[in-house]
Amino acid sequence: MLTLYYAPHTCSLASHIALEDAGAVYELRRIDFKAAEQRSADYLRINPKARVPALATPRGILTETPAMLAFIAQTHPDARLAPLEDAFAFAQLQAFNNYLCSSVHVAHAHRMRGYRWADEQSSFDDMKRKVPQSVGACFAVIEDALRKGPWVMGEMYTIADPYLFTLAQWLEADGVDLSRLPRVLEHRSRMAQRRNVMKAIAEELAE
Amino acid sequence: MLTLYYAPHTCSLASHIALEDAGAVYELRRIDFKAAEQRSADYLRINPKARVPALATPRGILTETPAMLAFIAQTHPDARLAPLEDAFAFAQLQAFNNYLCSSVHVAHAHRMRGYRWADEQSSFDDMKRKVPQSVGACFAVIEDALRKGPWVMGEMYTIADPYLFTLAQWLEADGVDLSRLPRVLEHRSRMAQRRNVMKAIAEELAE
Repeated sequence: MLTLYYAPHTCSLASHIALEDAGAVYELRRIDFKAAEQRSADYLRINPKARVPALATPRGILTETPAMLAFIAQTHPDARLAPLEDAFAFAQLQAFNNYLCSSVHVAHAHRMRGYRWADEQSSFDDMKRKVPQSVGACFAVIEDALRKGPWVMGEMYTIADPYLFTLAQWLEADGVDLSRLPRVLEHRSRMAQRRNVMKAIAEELAE
Repeated sequence: MLTLYYAPHTCSLASHIALEDAGAVYELRRIDFKAAEQRSADYLRINPKARVPALATPRGILTETPAMLAFIAQTHPDARLAPLEDAFAFAQLQAFNNYLCSSVHVAHAHRMRGYRWADEQSSFDDMKRKVPQSVGACFAVIEDALRKGPWVMGEMYTIADPYLFTLAQWLEADGVDLSRLPRVLEHRSRMAQRRNVMKAIAEELAE
């Protein structure tokens, strides 16, 4: 049995959708950010980094979305959520997911979590002003990467798709110019109509 | 044949060492940051993200260090640079490498590349002041993760070791309190004595 530690409106949605796509047997455990539960002693024993997502497995805890997504794909090979037999294609998929976590998500985080990297209110304001541009520049790279379509990897739906969908949900709040991102928006709409995506979002908002 | 696009003193060293560890057939291509070659039209065709590293393969270009490292390990299985037959251990390894790229390297980048996320000099100064603390907090997590030793994954040397070594080279310049990181420093010393590490560093500084 797997347990996904998640919070609504965070990147944990990507792993939640992937677990559905994989047909995994799992349970959900919501972490209450409003009560700062991610910094509680109990949760720090799960993830000392005080973040979601985390995935409890019979072997121990996993963190970091790209690693968790690859794990879900590798342990549910029948779901064909990654090109597991092709090291080059798998690396392309991993490069995409790494870009999402280390560039896209990081740029986005400067809107509300500037305290990770600075102390002054003036810096936070400056960072916030730059988010439409910095996140927009990241999504310009992604728009270009979606040339093949219909999915991130082309014909094959993979773990990159729920991850991109999850981060693309923040575009409006980040103030990004959507008119330049037709492929990203089309991908997001198509993802939003998938049964597993609707189920995951409904579960996260219901509790 | 593989071609590694690199620049000295950057995270491309991790992939360079891993290629040596793998016994890979590869050539090096230095990108001249002082001449802003990473933003030249020629290099943007290699990597539109204008960064190093990039790895040219017969199938195409790969970017993003964790993805490249996993690719090197998977395509050179005899070198045993990752627990390729154990999805959980592989995910732990990937989680470690993802933390290096999305948290450690990102915290470090605020010392000199604050312009990615802000515009004002006062913000850059503020970010720079916080680097000893923000990078130090990341390395406190790593210090704890090295409990098992002697390598990141315990007994098995893996692609996580050259990556950690590469980022740990920046600790002094980042102003991090080294007295709290005995395991990180011991790991760094041990890595620095490996033949492949010395060879890779010498090659990068020789050109």
